[in-house]
Amino acid sequence: MKATGIIVEYNPFHNGHLLHLQEARKQTQADVVIAVMSGSFLQRGEPALLPKWERAQMAVDAGVDLVVELPFHFATQQAAIFANGAVEILDALGVQSIFFGSENGDANAFSSAAKILTEQDVPFKAAMRRFLDDKKNSYATAWNAAIHELAPDLTLDLAQPNNILGFHYARAIAEQGKAIEIATMARQNAAYHDENPTHHSIASATAIRTMLLGNDWKKVRQYVPDTTLRLLQKFRETHSFVSWDDFWPLLKYQLVTAPISQLQSTRGVSEGIENRLQQAALHATNFDEFLAATRTKRYSNARIKRTALQILAQQSETTTTQNYIRLLGMSTTGQRYLGRIKKNIALPIISTASKANPALIENDIRATKLYSFAPTLENQILRDFHTSPYRKNP
Amino acid sequence: MKATGIIVEYNPFHNGHLLHLQEARKQTQADVVIAVMSGSFLQRGEPALLPKWERAQMAVDAGVDLVVELPFHFATQQAAIFANGAVEILDALGVQSIFFGSENGDANAFSSAAKILTEQDVPFKAAMRRFLDDKKNSYATAWNAAIHELAPDLTLDLAQPNNILGFHYARAIAEQGKAIEIATMARQNAAYHDENPTHHSIASATAIRTMLLGNDWKKVRQYVPDTTLRLLQKFRETHSFVSWDDFWPLLKYQLVTAPISQLQSTRGVSEGIENRLQQAALHATNFDEFLAATRTKRYSNARIKRTALQILAQQSETTTTQNYIRLLGMSTTGQRYLGRIKKNIALPIISTASKANPALIENDIRATKLYSFAPTLENQILRDFHTSPYRKNP
Repeated sequence: MKATGIIVEYNPFHNGHLLHLQEARKQTQADVVIAVMSGSFLQRGEPALLPKWERAQMAVDAGVDLVVELPFHFATQQAAIFANGAVEILDALGVQSIFFGSENGDANAFSSAAKILTEQDVPFKAAMRRFLDDKKNSYATAWNAAIHELAPDLTLDLAQPNNILGFHYARAIAEQGKAIEIATMARQNAAYHDENPTHHSIASATAIRTMLLGNDWKKVRQYVPDTTLRLLQKFRETHSFVSWDDFWPLLKYQLVTAPISQLQSTRGVSEGIENRLQQAALHATNFDEFLAATRTKRYSNARIKRTALQILAQQSETTTTQNYIRLLGMSTTGQRYLGRIKKNIALPIISTASKANPALIENDIRATKLYSFAPTLENQILRDFHTSPYRKNP
Repeated sequence: MKATGIIVEYNPFHNGHLLHLQEARKQTQADVVIAVMSGSFLQRGEPALLPKWERAQMAVDAGVDLVVELPFHFATQQAAIFANGAVEILDALGVQSIFFGSENGDANAFSSAAKILTEQDVPFKAAMRRFLDDKKNSYATAWNAAIHELAPDLTLDLAQPNNILGFHYARAIAEQGKAIEIATMARQNAAYHDENPTHHSIASATAIRTMLLGNDWKKVRQYVPDTTLRLLQKFRETHSFVSWDDFWPLLKYQLVTAPISQLQSTRGVSEGIENRLQQAALHATNFDEFLAATRTKRYSNARIKRTALQILAQQSETTTTQNYIRLLGMSTTGQRYLGRIKKNIALPIISTASKANPALIENDIRATKLYSFAPTLENQILRDFHTSPYRKNP
């Protein structure tokens, strides 16, 4: 059986994701599509709109064969670490290719860029440091400038969010020395942050979240599969959608009350950013005010949110970074595929957390407990511990 | 000028405290009465009903000459540490005596008991360990049993809460080798925890807090001086009284989200109590449920609350234990006295926190910021930093 891998957040699963899934199957001629999905918290340093279990079910109901969780450590950090964790999992699950959407759309551009950087690691890092010396440069700006200094002919625009992710997938494959092919499709119709969808059936997840938070179900219906719609509506009957606002009092408490030495040893905290965050927390009365007070040219909103999330989740520099495969959902095909390859998987595989090695999953269990502090999710504090993967049988 | 010291919490200041204050002045013939008062959090592991600034003003308005704060580290720990911190401060402020209320009422009984224990430290500790080996014994029970094994003729009942505190004052004076006399009065009419006052003007602070939380101002009026009543009413116009319930979501978050290694290195955490607290936090939906689930014969409610408070305030075993004198309020006499002795005070003295050595007061500033997480106190998050001591001039 031929497998391809996709790397997703599905926050929530929508028609654009469906197109991506169908293209993945078509272009790679895969029998099995495996999605590595972030859990309760996402790569931009935000909580997911709804729990991973509902999101995994959306994915399987829409045709994904296997949904596995990207552990918190990888899921909530910068693109390079995010990509490394996802590629390691997909390789362990035996995919021949990774398929992603990008602004560029040409797989060769990504392979070339990855190759240049892997071969010129030392001059790249030197250029990176030089651009970062200018305090006005954000990491993203410095990074893009350093790459284009090394490879002036590069056709890949690395200021585009999906190109960046795709590049990191290619880079992770090269660095880990994996025999995984890259396949990509040009994203159409909905740029990542588009607030106003123009296409008749495809909108960005950002736009759909806005519709959902505004209870505009009539509009939502237009942009998500029926299976997603039903799950969203069912969730919404008894719960609220989750946002950073739900965690603001806890973040403020943590920033104000934790000893400064503890903030400093939090993963991702450097350059004295802890002081900036702490000062902002003292004066802000909600998360938006906090963000507005902390943002600078140097620190993008995403970087601030990621750092705030590491502090909220009390991730220290010594928190485990071990990777593993946590099953969240499976189609019949996914189950059959898993049965075939099970004996040859290089990473620990976890079906139900209560039966897993506690040390291995402790950090993700903590993260899901934290997620349950969102109002209306109180009863889910132990859900992650006892829930079995969603199985869709015909 | 002759000074006497009293050690108080004033939660809130009531007629019994007034009697104690007047007796202190009379019996010790002091010109100056100095009160060392706990700040935002108290020795039984609870937040104070209202901020230290209002409580200090109540004290000065009722006749105390000097109110200084017992730093968080001392104020929120077991009686021995509490007493050590308070005695050190009072000695630095030049008191000739310490005056306290007790069930016993005989100063000699306290001095004798302290002497026995100081002289027989090794056999006492051995006896203590022996009694603690029986897991059914609480610390208080083991401690009382060990003392009476060493001193069978002791007339001091060390199961009584005020006798225990008085004993620790005497013990701290002996251990620190201070030339401070002990004076005591027998407490009358209101045992510490009496819920139903019988005396016409004296009720326990516990009973008064119940009246206050029930908004029974007519009854409160009977048991507190007018100056207290006015301050309580003024506070209540724009704020709520503070209780553990206000901090429950933060405590739960901290118990659930902090790495277990961090909980273990919290001051006062031992014998695996962190697991018991963590488990209880997962299932409890309010602080009372949490307390009910954690209490055992071994762990009294007070011990659990003190431990929970150390976790909430993120106090590690390495948090500073340095003592200092923080001025909260002064009468004219108190100001004159302070002016005279100022040059000979062995501890750092702090009038306004914003002008103090930040490292010295950091822990108490954090505690007061934490206190401001109580609803209606949000605006007071920086109050401790900028407030000057209350001065009562004629």
